[in-house]
Amino acid sequence: MVTSLDDLPIRDDLRGLTPYGAPQKHVRIRLNVNENTHPIPDDVARGIVDAVADAIRTVNRYPDREFTLLRESLASYLGHGLGADNIWAANGSNEVLQQILQAFGGPGRSVLGFPPTYSMHSIIAAGTGTAWLRGERDEEFGISPETAVRWIEETGPDIVFFCSPNNPTGTPLHLDTITAAYDATDGIVVVDEAYAEFAPAELPTALSLLAGRPRLIVSRTMSKAFAFAGARVGYLAADPAIADALRLVRLPYHLSALTQAAAIAALAHTPQMLAMVDDIKSQRDRLLVELPKLGYQVHDSWANFVLFGGVRDPHAVFEALLDDDIIIRDLSIPGHLRVTAGTEEETTAFLEAMARITARGTIGAIDRIDA
Amino acid sequence: MVTSLDDLPIRDDLRGLTPYGAPQKHVRIRLNVNENTHPIPDDVARGIVDAVADAIRTVNRYPDREFTLLRESLASYLGHGLGADNIWAANGSNEVLQQILQAFGGPGRSVLGFPPTYSMHSIIAAGTGTAWLRGERDEEFGISPETAVRWIEETGPDIVFFCSPNNPTGTPLHLDTITAAYDATDGIVVVDEAYAEFAPAELPTALSLLAGRPRLIVSRTMSKAFAFAGARVGYLAADPAIADALRLVRLPYHLSALTQAAAIAALAHTPQMLAMVDDIKSQRDRLLVELPKLGYQVHDSWANFVLFGGVRDPHAVFEALLDDDIIIRDLSIPGHLRVTAGTEEETTAFLEAMARITARGTIGAIDRIDA
Repeated sequence: MVTSLDDLPIRDDLRGLTPYGAPQKHVRIRLNVNENTHPIPDDVARGIVDAVADAIRTVNRYPDREFTLLRESLASYLGHGLGADNIWAANGSNEVLQQILQAFGGPGRSVLGFPPTYSMHSIIAAGTGTAWLRGERDEEFGISPETAVRWIEETGPDIVFFCSPNNPTGTPLHLDTITAAYDATDGIVVVDEAYAEFAPAELPTALSLLAGRPRLIVSRTMSKAFAFAGARVGYLAADPAIADALRLVRLPYHLSALTQAAAIAALAHTPQMLAMVDDIKSQRDRLLVELPKLGYQVHDSWANFVLFGGVRDPHAVFEALLDDDIIIRDLSIPGHLRVTAGTEEETTAFLEAMARITARGTIGAIDRIDA
Repeated sequence: MVTSLDDLPIRDDLRGLTPYGAPQKHVRIRLNVNENTHPIPDDVARGIVDAVADAIRTVNRYPDREFTLLRESLASYLGHGLGADNIWAANGSNEVLQQILQAFGGPGRSVLGFPPTYSMHSIIAAGTGTAWLRGERDEEFGISPETAVRWIEETGPDIVFFCSPNNPTGTPLHLDTITAAYDATDGIVVVDEAYAEFAPAELPTALSLLAGRPRLIVSRTMSKAFAFAGARVGYLAADPAIADALRLVRLPYHLSALTQAAAIAALAHTPQMLAMVDDIKSQRDRLLVELPKLGYQVHDSWANFVLFGGVRDPHAVFEALLDDDIIIRDLSIPGHLRVTAGTEEETTAFLEAMARITARGTIGAIDRIDA
């Protein structure tokens, strides 16, 4: 007799759920999960391997529970006068966000988010027993200071989640929205800046707002700009008291010695890694220019992906691209699909496939424009 | 103005707590946290580095969310007819246990443990909002089938935690206690076998009980037998439906590509790693023989450490050992200290220091025996 999940005494609130996760398919051109599709340069890879080889020599010992060298490296990378005490890290920004909700959310508490946004935000809220409050965005997925304040006043959340730029829409979030939200709440304000390196380099991020705002947390990841999705390194910058709070809920030794060594080595090659970011931004800008020429409406993006609308049959386009060995993301936003900016070759392959699909006239652009 | 933790809106149940963690001190001989003090052999280390070097080439991509190859390797290592579907893994067995409590415990549910036991069990219960019910052990830290059943009937827990052999006492747990407990509850029964490889090799572990018991979970770790504390790899064996439940609460991509690669490579060298285990067992047996000769009472241990009693002033002995550049563990059990079995050289240094300390007569053995 085979036991099924329903036979087990799982929590009632989990019954009938299905696990989160985009399909992991063997497709040649993968533009579906906003990875950095550029492999790590050879000499950076060698530096990382050397660091890991060194760490293996003492892997029989528990890792530095305080990951002090990694926090120093991350602080130095972020600048803004931040020190190691301002930094916390975990296995991906998902774990950072989970720890924030364990410390400041949980049963009897709530977090306000603004869908459509990073889908893990509401999942992590559920996983920690934190009530998920849904705010609404303005036109074109923006959030004005007035909109943020109104939702905070109406819902009284313990935590506010922003995503800047927003995923899956790519939408910038202006700093005055963050400061207005901070002033409107006594709770924690989290700005998820997973894609911040893809924003215009000359403009300030929420890191510039940290001084004097001990309830503000800026979360980041090495997954995107540092091409490190496989290594699982998320982190945050905040007042040192925030790290003190997270020490109460983190599992001891949560960051492995190999993770610490690999991340420190990658950060030592920051200029090379950020050169890839410049290339990705230029491919994103190509998507923003070329998709409208095919008749699609693109949404302004400060991230490494583009959400585009005006799609007659998103699921059919998704499947047609799969036939061309290209995978993008169907997020069930009506008329929309999301595509990651890849290498120049990948982006070209995607745009050429979209041109062919659109020319068929049946599933592609509603407002088809023949070249 | 400096912000303190008390100024932040943390959860009320966290206020006033201090973070878990043994001191991480720079001491020459570290026998305090039950690490495997044998470094990984050179050729095994090379195999791991080669595997990590290969994984780095695609670290820009998210890791296999299902860590299928790792689950296959772990199943093959455990034997007992287990397959990949029976295995789940996470960043240390702490995270495995946390996921179990997220799926089967949490607010409104309870877990029964038998202190003194692994201190993280109650901490993870608190972190997941699961009520921690304290059972009592028999003489000499054992748990008879009758004792287990009585506590289950009296407290009606949703989950029962056993630790076999128990930490910090080293006490074996007999299989008839596990089967009696399983039959007495409709809930989940977890047997934490972190130290199982140090038990007599010819005797069966709780793995032999898994067939036909879909609510039984056996958790393991690579930290001890595989000298992998720094790499953070815990895992469990259970009915495949258990893994289905944990997929609902795990953070996606929780196991990094580097972790997966390193663990698979280490498992490929199982015979060499288990040869170290044999050496550690012989050092533990030395402790069990030699400490009584100094006048201490040792508790039977099937683990890589020994709890010993009859200590006049445990804290003073701990400090005196530190003066000799040796650190062991003071767990605040009256009259007791715990020491990890190290290499032959480390164990000798510890025993010689204990002989000197004991000979002083003021802080060591209550029942001092002069050699």
